[in-house]
Amino acid sequence: MAPVTELPPPRPPVWTDLRAEDLHPSLEDPALTSMNLLNEVANHYPDAVSFAAGRPYEEFWRLDDVPRHLARFSEHLRTDLGYGEERVRRTLFQYGRTKGIVHDLVAANLELDEGISVDPESVVVTVGCQEAMVLVLRALRSGPRDVLLAVSPTYVGLTGAARLVDMPVLPVASGEAGVDLDDLLARIQGARSAGLRPRACYVMPDFANPSGVSMSEKTRRALLLLAREEDFLLLEDNPYGLFHGGERVPTCKALDEHRRVVYLGSFAKTVLPGARVGYVVADQTVTAGDGTVRLLADELSKIKSMLTVNTSALAQAVVGGALLEHGCSLLRATQPARAVYTANRARLVEGLAARFGTGSPVGWNVPGGGFFVVVTVPFPVDDALLTRSARDYGVLWTPMHHFYDTAGQGRDGPRSLRLSCSALTPEQVDTGLDRLARLITDELARTPRRADRFP
Amino acid sequence: MAPVTELPPPRPPVWTDLRAEDLHPSLEDPALTSMNLLNEVANHYPDAVSFAAGRPYEEFWRLDDVPRHLARFSEHLRTDLGYGEERVRRTLFQYGRTKGIVHDLVAANLELDEGISVDPESVVVTVGCQEAMVLVLRALRSGPRDVLLAVSPTYVGLTGAARLVDMPVLPVASGEAGVDLDDLLARIQGARSAGLRPRACYVMPDFANPSGVSMSEKTRRALLLLAREEDFLLLEDNPYGLFHGGERVPTCKALDEHRRVVYLGSFAKTVLPGARVGYVVADQTVTAGDGTVRLLADELSKIKSMLTVNTSALAQAVVGGALLEHGCSLLRATQPARAVYTANRARLVEGLAARFGTGSPVGWNVPGGGFFVVVTVPFPVDDALLTRSARDYGVLWTPMHHFYDTAGQGRDGPRSLRLSCSALTPEQVDTGLDRLARLITDELARTPRRADRFP
Repeated sequence: MAPVTELPPPRPPVWTDLRAEDLHPSLEDPALTSMNLLNEVANHYPDAVSFAAGRPYEEFWRLDDVPRHLARFSEHLRTDLGYGEERVRRTLFQYGRTKGIVHDLVAANLELDEGISVDPESVVVTVGCQEAMVLVLRALRSGPRDVLLAVSPTYVGLTGAARLVDMPVLPVASGEAGVDLDDLLARIQGARSAGLRPRACYVMPDFANPSGVSMSEKTRRALLLLAREEDFLLLEDNPYGLFHGGERVPTCKALDEHRRVVYLGSFAKTVLPGARVGYVVADQTVTAGDGTVRLLADELSKIKSMLTVNTSALAQAVVGGALLEHGCSLLRATQPARAVYTANRARLVEGLAARFGTGSPVGWNVPGGGFFVVVTVPFPVDDALLTRSARDYGVLWTPMHHFYDTAGQGRDGPRSLRLSCSALTPEQVDTGLDRLARLITDELARTPRRADRFP
Repeated sequence: MAPVTELPPPRPPVWTDLRAEDLHPSLEDPALTSMNLLNEVANHYPDAVSFAAGRPYEEFWRLDDVPRHLARFSEHLRTDLGYGEERVRRTLFQYGRTKGIVHDLVAANLELDEGISVDPESVVVTVGCQEAMVLVLRALRSGPRDVLLAVSPTYVGLTGAARLVDMPVLPVASGEAGVDLDDLLARIQGARSAGLRPRACYVMPDFANPSGVSMSEKTRRALLLLAREEDFLLLEDNPYGLFHGGERVPTCKALDEHRRVVYLGSFAKTVLPGARVGYVVADQTVTAGDGTVRLLADELSKIKSMLTVNTSALAQAVVGGALLEHGCSLLRATQPARAVYTANRARLVEGLAARFGTGSPVGWNVPGGGFFVVVTVPFPVDDALLTRSARDYGVLWTPMHHFYDTAGQGRDGPRSLRLSCSALTPEQVDTGLDRLARLITDELARTPRRADRFP
């Protein structure tokens, strides 16, 4: 780095500044600023127990996994695909196929672990699931009438991706079922009455982030039927499906007989976040004006070629090697992590029950899998409370208002908080709960009695 | 994969199809379809000599570079940054810093190799330079008035990125200087008269793709002055700067005393395309309505968090290891590749001179570096000619019309073709030129004499 004295002198203000108002409006949007804010709080209080981070458990990872996976994938190219050394090297090091080089392994994995049968050509390997969402939304947002529906509360990455392509997101009630189908239909009809065109509904049917709620098979089938009747797509995001607590329900894609589902997948939780490898299955056909028929995956690939060119071949090779090491099934490979998450969730909900007994105004749900539990309280849950929690009590969590596109903070916002237990030891869960209980007890003492608040 | 008989029955047409007209218009745009078309031709004729591919030379790469670079970067984390094993593993494997983990090494590299002094905090590490372009254009396209200028012919990836954010690209003449400053000023004034707001001008001052043209230091300084006077940014893309033929000119960023330049960098040509690691230097300040001042890099980071979350830490580690192995300078590390490119360019232009002597209507430029030479001919150069060239003559190249945003094919299109010599042996250059010469000779024989064509 140059010493400070060598830096160019500051420009006069007229030249120095871009104005925030001259940049894309998404940059001022809570969907894009939430994560920064939450990270800032976390960074200020590094010693706090964190129920905030949705990061996978890291104790099973080893540095030498990476070269081993790379070697395994290279061997696959030689042995299974018959590549010579030059082609192996080119596959790993050069620019490559836009749709990816582990598409066939992804398809095999979906067949084995999810019972989803897809042509590998309908798979686009992406830079994490986030890029997959952007690709799909960019394709579907053809003009100002196109809108997206999303079960609310919604993963903030979906809302953020929609902001980047200026696509409005209409919230759909979740309810106990994971999606309120009556509300969904009403939203679609309302949007159409307003001259809008609902293109798709985003859902996370298994152990949703942030709600932890899952859909029953019956709800999934009804949702598929509605999507067909009302001619919209389902964007099914499934990062947590393998982290069930014992019971599994087929994905919407596995039940999808009419290509209504665009399936979004991720290896961030099942293999490694550091690879940044996800994918989208888009087996829908796209008919051009001249009658030629293409695959939606190939249209998404065209967008990807202008977004990231292709997903890092080295990163894909690491994920490919991990898949090959387990015969393309991740069910057994994720067993240790699944056991950790299941134990942590149990410890969390049992710990809540032990601390907030019958008659307490504090409630929580008991998800059947995944990383998240939602706690409801009878007082406002805003970012100021989070900061107080971090500073004075040493515990971090996520205010649920961040997952509602339109809800404000303060008295009118959702009175709930998301607890993640994916990156904690059992002892940390206990310590965190002790601290959280102190915060909640103090807040309850500060809060006027219910009769005073709702006269 | 499931056998065909297990696939769901095809849906009736009303359900089956998305219509291309209902997807984003970019998908029908030549900027996004060109690459597909060119790749299809190349894939159909795998035995043709390819002057088309702008891929880096691959003979110096070794598979064991990857684990060595990973180990080197891990050691850097331990030794130079004092990380413990747990933190090393977390840095490589977990979700990470949105702006990247090799930002400090990138800044050191820019200081050493380009004389560019930047705060590492102003560096955003991206999924290749392509994502960097998307980030910048997404930020600058705040509404329908915002337009981009670009020296024409233009790298098609820039045009494609602009399409994804619906940002019009106004062409600026290149001329002999690499940018025609009179035309640039006229375009800016014209755009403003039309109610538009020119936000930036995209330039590749060193050995541009596709033209091979470079700007003199004088032109760069004049361009910087104009950018300051007319209050627009320069987007300087520099993938080929290290592949000079002996003479180097300072980058615009190195000459930039007023933060007018957003600098786009890539390790695809200097380290490995398969890592997909690039970066953007955005040290501009952004002033919010409340007077707070941020760094443009941090605004781009917010967009990146919703596009790809972060660049693969594993991929960054490979590039970081490569940088560390050479003390953060790539000047010496790229010497063998530089020698190959310099020799190939010389062989290419000498071979053209040997085949098309004085009096020939065929012309070409003699770039001082980079991968590309442009050949001009007195007949139309369209995709049909390329297909004939591949099929009947066994040689591939790129019709220059693909790099002009508005130019048509056929008689009215540019009568020129781009030859890339970066991925060929000297013998392949000779064979390719023999084949190209036969094509051109045959085309000249088919073309009416000049007097007949321009009566």
